[in-house]
Amino acid sequence: MTGGSAYARGVITPDELKAARARTQPHVRRTPVERCRSLDDRARAALFLKCEQLQRGGAFKFRGACNAVLGLDAETARRGVATHSSGNHAQALALAARMRGIPATLVMPSNAPRAKRAAVEALGATIVTCGPTLAEREAALAAVVADTGAEIVHPYDDARVIAGQATAVMELLEDAPDLDVVLAPVGGGGLLSGTCLGAAHVGARVEVVGAEPALADDAAESLRTGRRVGQRPPVSVADGLRTALGALPFEILRAHQVAIHVVSEEAIVDAMRFVWERAKLVIEPSAAVPVAAAMSGAYAGRRVGVILSGGNLDLDRLPWQGAERA
Amino acid sequence: MTGGSAYARGVITPDELKAARARTQPHVRRTPVERCRSLDDRARAALFLKCEQLQRGGAFKFRGACNAVLGLDAETARRGVATHSSGNHAQALALAARMRGIPATLVMPSNAPRAKRAAVEALGATIVTCGPTLAEREAALAAVVADTGAEIVHPYDDARVIAGQATAVMELLEDAPDLDVVLAPVGGGGLLSGTCLGAAHVGARVEVVGAEPALADDAAESLRTGRRVGQRPPVSVADGLRTALGALPFEILRAHQVAIHVVSEEAIVDAMRFVWERAKLVIEPSAAVPVAAAMSGAYAGRRVGVILSGGNLDLDRLPWQGAERA
Repeated sequence: MTGGSAYARGVITPDELKAARARTQPHVRRTPVERCRSLDDRARAALFLKCEQLQRGGAFKFRGACNAVLGLDAETARRGVATHSSGNHAQALALAARMRGIPATLVMPSNAPRAKRAAVEALGATIVTCGPTLAEREAALAAVVADTGAEIVHPYDDARVIAGQATAVMELLEDAPDLDVVLAPVGGGGLLSGTCLGAAHVGARVEVVGAEPALADDAAESLRTGRRVGQRPPVSVADGLRTALGALPFEILRAHQVAIHVVSEEAIVDAMRFVWERAKLVIEPSAAVPVAAAMSGAYAGRRVGVILSGGNLDLDRLPWQGAERA
Repeated sequence: MTGGSAYARGVITPDELKAARARTQPHVRRTPVERCRSLDDRARAALFLKCEQLQRGGAFKFRGACNAVLGLDAETARRGVATHSSGNHAQALALAARMRGIPATLVMPSNAPRAKRAAVEALGATIVTCGPTLAEREAALAAVVADTGAEIVHPYDDARVIAGQATAVMELLEDAPDLDVVLAPVGGGGLLSGTCLGAAHVGARVEVVGAEPALADDAAESLRTGRRVGQRPPVSVADGLRTALGALPFEILRAHQVAIHVVSEEAIVDAMRFVWERAKLVIEPSAAVPVAAAMSGAYAGRRVGVILSGGNLDLDRLPWQGAERA
């Protein structure tokens, strides 16, 4: 992470959250908040589903990328933005850069799905292909920055991105004001830490809880022990949550004393299928993780916001079909 | 079709449409109208998606069943309602009957999917199992009526049902007033004929077009030749549209000189996948039929309402996976 502003790494102030909301509001979709009777029955709670799978690019990630890109000064913006990602953040950053009319370079591993490469290319971004390890990705990204002077926009370990993600819960709390709990998935922690900050910013008396796959429970352990641990073997069906908690999200989650609710792979797949069948919403496995937490019954009798983080997945092979299920 | 009122078979008056709206409004969900940029790009038109997959029971069918059940006089209602169906109408009628607190008997063929039987049973309806042919179904239904005096509510050849289906387009035209075209799928014709009546009732200057699979194009032929033809071999992936056009819908569609837009199986599957991938909406193949018509480009430059008829399907086997694709 380079970048001129202290903001990129620093404490996220109320002014910055306010600015993030104002900056992104004309560009992000104000996604609907859906209800589903049969889901409420299963959870024995009133669930309010914040539909970020209907966000531009199919995931909440556009909020953070949009805030980071729109907040760049003209000189920095001219040199463009870059990141290494093969997931939803790549598409979000490419979309935000196209919106501002600046170059975007995405470092993607050679084993990234063809569909994801094509989606990013269709948005006019440049793809630099590298080997699959983190070291290879970081080296390729460093070379891009040395060559172009591009601003790195990290998928979650970036205050501008976190401030952007905070806007989802701000909208949710306007549409469903009296929530007792908000559940958000946690991978790198950008969404969850943004959710803590956003809820606090609007003064909501709401408990924010992270939902994490048991097979990728590094956030739960890191917060329990107070020491940030590394990535688990990347095996969870919730592919968006396999990454380890970032340094800045870790600090924010620690400061907010956020609880993490860990769920099994089976519960994730069951929740995803239930949402498809009954709520008729296409969500990706990562978005089913907070639904699984709610369906456990742990929030019975409460008003629970659930951030459905995204809806991008391979429709040729669903988690309840065949070998992908862990 | 028996039943006390001439209304069950007769002409559907503006008063009856008004009554259907008033009667059903407190009970049906006012489903949202969704937009999708990438779908608009593909269709080169502005599409307004009326999300009946989010209707109670997962399909528009609840509107018609609800109107029929709520309109029964107390004495008739006490004896209950009955139909033969293994599809969305069965579930809708069971739901409407439970809502009014009256018995429902569903005649279902022995080869009906287990999940559909279970859904209907969960709603407290009685299931009578029969052989799979139409003659066997009708004989079983006649026996139920002889035994219980139940009122038959036909899935589409029933004016009360058609008047109920008309409420979907009434809502759509309130939410998206300046539509040039409304596309609705046509199987038995309850939804399409109701759409014609509903659009005319609110005085909209809108062209109503039926969308039909080429492999189930009996409505297209019937309207072209002026003679109602029978069911095609039931092979289209759009399982809800395999049935033949009903007598009453035929008369209504003829009177309104409705055009039918016929689409290929490939176009249906492509449209369904596109809606899942880009709009993130779970729709069943029948609901993809009008989307396929729009994606053909035939309505370029126009404002097009599309009635997404339902979202009930077997998630274990999707049309783009393996052998089901025709």
